[in-house]
Amino acid sequence: MSANLVITNVHVLKPDGKVEVANIFITGDRISKISNSTANADNCTIIDGRGKFAVPGFINAHTHASMTLLRSYADDMALMEWLNNHIWPIEAKMNRHDIRAGAELAAVEMIKSGTTTFMDMYGPYMEEVAQVVDKSGMRGVLCRGLIGIFNGDEKLATNVELFKDWNGKAGGRIKVMFGPHAVYTCPPDYLRKIADTAGSLGAEIHMHMNETLDEINGCVKDYGRRPFEVVAETGLLELGFLAAHCVHLSDNEIEIMRANNVRVAHNPGSNMKISSGISPVPKLLSKGITVGLGTDGAASNNNLDMLEEIRLAALLHKVDTFNPLEIPALEAVKMATEYGAAAVGISDIGRLEVGYKADITLFDMSGAEWQPVLNPVSLLVYSANSASADTVIVDGKILMQGRELKTLDEEKIIAEFNSRVKKLLAK
Amino acid sequence: MSANLVITNVHVLKPDGKVEVANIFITGDRISKISNSTANADNCTIIDGRGKFAVPGFINAHTHASMTLLRSYADDMALMEWLNNHIWPIEAKMNRHDIRAGAELAAVEMIKSGTTTFMDMYGPYMEEVAQVVDKSGMRGVLCRGLIGIFNGDEKLATNVELFKDWNGKAGGRIKVMFGPHAVYTCPPDYLRKIADTAGSLGAEIHMHMNETLDEINGCVKDYGRRPFEVVAETGLLELGFLAAHCVHLSDNEIEIMRANNVRVAHNPGSNMKISSGISPVPKLLSKGITVGLGTDGAASNNNLDMLEEIRLAALLHKVDTFNPLEIPALEAVKMATEYGAAAVGISDIGRLEVGYKADITLFDMSGAEWQPVLNPVSLLVYSANSASADTVIVDGKILMQGRELKTLDEEKIIAEFNSRVKKLLAK
Repeated sequence: MSANLVITNVHVLKPDGKVEVANIFITGDRISKISNSTANADNCTIIDGRGKFAVPGFINAHTHASMTLLRSYADDMALMEWLNNHIWPIEAKMNRHDIRAGAELAAVEMIKSGTTTFMDMYGPYMEEVAQVVDKSGMRGVLCRGLIGIFNGDEKLATNVELFKDWNGKAGGRIKVMFGPHAVYTCPPDYLRKIADTAGSLGAEIHMHMNETLDEINGCVKDYGRRPFEVVAETGLLELGFLAAHCVHLSDNEIEIMRANNVRVAHNPGSNMKISSGISPVPKLLSKGITVGLGTDGAASNNNLDMLEEIRLAALLHKVDTFNPLEIPALEAVKMATEYGAAAVGISDIGRLEVGYKADITLFDMSGAEWQPVLNPVSLLVYSANSASADTVIVDGKILMQGRELKTLDEEKIIAEFNSRVKKLLAK
Repeated sequence: MSANLVITNVHVLKPDGKVEVANIFITGDRISKISNSTANADNCTIIDGRGKFAVPGFINAHTHASMTLLRSYADDMALMEWLNNHIWPIEAKMNRHDIRAGAELAAVEMIKSGTTTFMDMYGPYMEEVAQVVDKSGMRGVLCRGLIGIFNGDEKLATNVELFKDWNGKAGGRIKVMFGPHAVYTCPPDYLRKIADTAGSLGAEIHMHMNETLDEINGCVKDYGRRPFEVVAETGLLELGFLAAHCVHLSDNEIEIMRANNVRVAHNPGSNMKISSGISPVPKLLSKGITVGLGTDGAASNNNLDMLEEIRLAALLHKVDTFNPLEIPALEAVKMATEYGAAAVGISDIGRLEVGYKADITLFDMSGAEWQPVLNPVSLLVYSANSASADTVIVDGKILMQGRELKTLDEEKIIAEFNSRVKKLLAK
């Protein structure tokens, strides 16, 4: 089968970390060849890759896309003050149109910063997010945030509905998980019910775990055990389990995670801003636990910029461990790509390799901050910013080229978004 | 006197942290009026400030500009391996043309990321950096890095020469300090000699202080006291003293700093990457000590992007102290502007206020990551990246507009820089 898209003379990040100038051939939705030769590139769409750095599209392993609506709405305050008095009251007023507008703005922001896949957990109307995934051409892993302390069954039913309506849809670009919110919002009985339901559908689980010391202390007080110890008895961990945050962990919990192949979405920016603490990521990686990266929602980050999370991961653990060798540049990039793919449970993305899905971001290396181009991986992690993301491809389809969006109308989306925010704040 | 430049309808960051839409009038090199009215704006150059956020130009209080030559040359290694086996051997091969090319690239990078003033310390040929300051239109505070353990007198003489040739030059945009490198490279006798020389010229001091635990331990071993205790007896602190890093400090040293009005250049990115440690910035600020921000050199950061340092300062100390209220957004911006001005000892920059120098950066707030524009200060610190820097003005002169440089030929500088790096690496 002949290729239909070829990226020529591009710096390619190979899975082993080497960077080579080559041509990437894409046939349908997959990478079909990476070669020094441009033979058989006739009759293809050509993207001139000179001076550009091709990396696997970033995978945001934990976010709440529509929280873009609340970006900079309430910052620099204590967590419970922020949640109780600011975030939760206004979230309760959001309607279907708000969720849609927030997710569209998020899609614009993510594509423009080089992200191709995102793992999303939010409240009602997740089908609006699914439609945005469909329309934008991005890849999305979606779940309904399930809070069991009121109307838990009703919420669970909407997650089932989401699964039935959208899992595997949008050309296979949508995957649906179940989203128990956290141990402090979901009693064990409710978690067991979610495990039964998700298990019967073959769905995986995404859940906030061990984010703050308050959460741990509350859990120990309520159940006499720590969060992973509680969750381990509900059946959830056996289904394929992506845990967001994982900041405060006992050795026993780390052993539970390892034994159950729990995957982690590390959110350094959010953890720093909310002062949750520093996840023991080097220790988790040394135990063979999969650690991806996420931005968390734009209300607590305050953006959806994965390159920032990559840099924070590379910097934070060096200073935390007093070891300049921790999380070198390539490892940080892998957390946002290859490990991120494993975190969200998609086996054929996250590497630039023949047979993998053509989810690719090209960074423009022409800016001053990229000079001299001695080591593109180091430059990407330690020097560049996401405005260098030039071209974004998902499933072989071009979503952005020369920073121009191809599937979404950026100007219209921003205008509609701001009009929605204005109405929401006036409620 | 009538204005010659007016920025209309721009969001203005006032010194009290309030943001108001107004018109900024510039007469000569200073801000002459900030007003809701555009009366008397006829016959002026007009910059349309709609949708833009005007902040004081960033002040990079510690860098080594020409180290751009070594960006991504050697990363992810232990400090002494990095210095001894990589950085110092190649630095010894740099000639005058290299220093010039490195500083020109740095000027491009700094202007494009919104920086108007930089404090530079490097080896020989600092007059080349001075010429780049002159040509670029930026403001520069320059010193020769003085290493006393070989040819100390000769180096001191070049710093004297730099002072005599360049202090107050380039229309007053250049200030020259003296640059003792560190306690581990400058014995006390040499520090006293620098203090005498600088004192006789009325020059201030810039020095690396208390960066790593190795430095502290070595100092205690050699002199029986900690770095600030050693330096306090040399006369240097009385001259006006800007200390870079200040990561590891005893209470006695903090008291010495406070009593001598020592100013600090905090470099969170470099301190994290090299895993030096976390400076006790909230404690220093609470003692009334001036703390500015710096990028350090591009070999250890790896860029000259002050907005990244602003964000890191805002995030790092929150997680370090477990307090989400530490270093709120406005405080982080002040560290890069008003406090930075005090750090480098220039009294009339760092605030958008009548009578202050017109050193102004306009950020374009049209991108997705700036929506909704509820709180521009929060957005700048927690969401934007420096590619939003649209317009840069120094002394009332436009250095960049619409991201196009007005005083420097970006393309030519990048080509010459890369050609220089190639030759340097081939030596």
